[in-house]
Amino acid sequence: MTSPKALFEPDRLARVREATAESGLGALLLTPGPDLRYVTGYDAIPLERLTCLVVPAADDPFLVVPRLELPAAQASTAGALGVELVPWDETDDPYALVAARLPRDLGRVGVADRMWAVMALRFRAAMSGVEQVAAGGVLGELRKRKSVAEIEALREAGAAIDRVHGIVPALLKPGRTEREVGRDIAEAIVAEGHATVDFVIVGSGPNGASPHHELSDRVIQAGEPVVVDIGGTMPSGYCSDETRVYSVGEAPADFHAYYAVLKEAQEAARAAVRPGVTPEAVDAAARDVIAAAGYGEYFIHRTGHGIGLETHEEPYIVTGNTEPLEPGMAFSIEPGIYPGPHGARIEDIVVCTADGHESVNHVTRDLIVVGG
Amino acid sequence: MTSPKALFEPDRLARVREATAESGLGALLLTPGPDLRYVTGYDAIPLERLTCLVVPAADDPFLVVPRLELPAAQASTAGALGVELVPWDETDDPYALVAARLPRDLGRVGVADRMWAVMALRFRAAMSGVEQVAAGGVLGELRKRKSVAEIEALREAGAAIDRVHGIVPALLKPGRTEREVGRDIAEAIVAEGHATVDFVIVGSGPNGASPHHELSDRVIQAGEPVVVDIGGTMPSGYCSDETRVYSVGEAPADFHAYYAVLKEAQEAARAAVRPGVTPEAVDAAARDVIAAAGYGEYFIHRTGHGIGLETHEEPYIVTGNTEPLEPGMAFSIEPGIYPGPHGARIEDIVVCTADGHESVNHVTRDLIVVGG
Repeated sequence: MTSPKALFEPDRLARVREATAESGLGALLLTPGPDLRYVTGYDAIPLERLTCLVVPAADDPFLVVPRLELPAAQASTAGALGVELVPWDETDDPYALVAARLPRDLGRVGVADRMWAVMALRFRAAMSGVEQVAAGGVLGELRKRKSVAEIEALREAGAAIDRVHGIVPALLKPGRTEREVGRDIAEAIVAEGHATVDFVIVGSGPNGASPHHELSDRVIQAGEPVVVDIGGTMPSGYCSDETRVYSVGEAPADFHAYYAVLKEAQEAARAAVRPGVTPEAVDAAARDVIAAAGYGEYFIHRTGHGIGLETHEEPYIVTGNTEPLEPGMAFSIEPGIYPGPHGARIEDIVVCTADGHESVNHVTRDLIVVGG
Repeated sequence: MTSPKALFEPDRLARVREATAESGLGALLLTPGPDLRYVTGYDAIPLERLTCLVVPAADDPFLVVPRLELPAAQASTAGALGVELVPWDETDDPYALVAARLPRDLGRVGVADRMWAVMALRFRAAMSGVEQVAAGGVLGELRKRKSVAEIEALREAGAAIDRVHGIVPALLKPGRTEREVGRDIAEAIVAEGHATVDFVIVGSGPNGASPHHELSDRVIQAGEPVVVDIGGTMPSGYCSDETRVYSVGEAPADFHAYYAVLKEAQEAARAAVRPGVTPEAVDAAARDVIAAAGYGEYFIHRTGHGIGLETHEEPYIVTGNTEPLEPGMAFSIEPGIYPGPHGARIEDIVVCTADGHESVNHVTRDLIVVGG
């Protein structure tokens, strides 16, 4: 299916074909997931019956679909793109069907990063002598450079999740459980314009010291910091992701000490963002501030991840990523300090601009104190 | 995370180890998804950072996890199983880590059917000379034979979706759109005890002739048949899936003619279910009735699919599947007739018993006429 409000740019298919040929691949095989959605706008559900866009480097693309998905594919933007639709019946072998339509001397073929392994293995069996590589080498390069329309979609997602953070102070009360607060936040994520809720982290007190803690039945206590990291997918297909820290009443003095360091580190990393700077230098900008203040051992994850049709995609803001940033790249800046018995993380989604960065999130990065 | 109400049976790991050795595989590699959940109860979110249960045929299993997921893994049933947890840091190569802990002469390794291709390719690069096969050859054999507790979980799921179908007549009114009705049904799916909504199909009039149509802004008209195919996942992890056909006021005479055939076909297929019968014979039992009545060309899909931790899993009730049914196998029986300008499908989830079948769904299979 394709949402009527989905963002889709029809020129992407031509750019993918060109990139496939340039990268020396014989073809791309894209099953349902963000790569297929990026290229065709078709948000097909991943199921055991093969749906696959085949993009040969030297021939016209075609979309193989189970016959009973044909109406959905025709109604989608994939149908509107004019891509040939090739239906298969319940007792056909769709892998053999794809192989038979491609030249035998394909060389290397790119498979969607998220293709199910069982499908990749069936393609391997059907296409002997063809080497499989991850299609992300082609798609990731395109997807990580956002268009003007994609950046606008990320701004809309950022504004929507900002509105949800604006509601959080009214939801956080001592005596409520993380799960109760989380349910209300999930409702607000949809009410503020997202199509789906992707994750809701409410880490109160000691749970704030576990970066990927989600929700528990723990009762929030007065005087506790609470890490709220939330996100969803907009009807456009683009994702939001924002973390702010709240305290229910007055937080402990040791918390205030490292929260100030964290805020400075997050600012330093954002300030480091500009074209030509490496992701690992952005990571270091946050890490150096935290290490200099003596909290280095408590910053146990990378500084950020790209975002777009997926919450986590390229570029990753991590040591070892030396590919320079370019205008239009969009990613999170989210250092954290987790010394226990509590922790903190501040996260914005930023876009690299011609001479710096733009944050799509605008909620204060100060600790947000709510009535205890 | 693991829901406190998740169904998990700790003896599964030992059975998987045994089956791995018996199948001649050196090891299984299970990333987040239904296979990992089946074996360990750990419902980890599929993310780009590798989480992987490694089950060597000849050594103890271990779970490789990103360090920041360690608290979640420890808190899960995987932690309670006593499986060694092996955390990796942001700049480690977890694929090399797995390879280094396994013998070089593994021979063949089973990768989770739903493992992302990009991960399977990285394992391939890290483990040269090791042949990858789909782990479903081992896991599917175990998962398709449900335990007493799993059958009870499917009964609970069936009762929950029965209750939702019980509410549908109050929601279907001429003048409402499919999407409006669908939203109410989605809320009811959660209100009646599901943890998540997996799919909501409301196919009114001509949309009922497209088996995988979901929701549209089409306004439901008086005198139209409406196909409602809905399902979700219970806190246990097990899925529901049930289709019934409604008519808003009096349906056309030609619809009644083939609906009677469909009901007879669905009954014939259910009646064919017993140990030793092949899935293709069950498929034929439905297909023969429909073909004999002259509607054969309008039954364009298989008769059913297995169900459990996934909505679609083995065994598939389709021509060519000749592996005899056994007690404890659970699957849908859902023939359909789609002649246009409308269509119909009737679906129950059934469990193969010692001498026949049990349906977990109990809503009438008659056409359900609601006030037009």
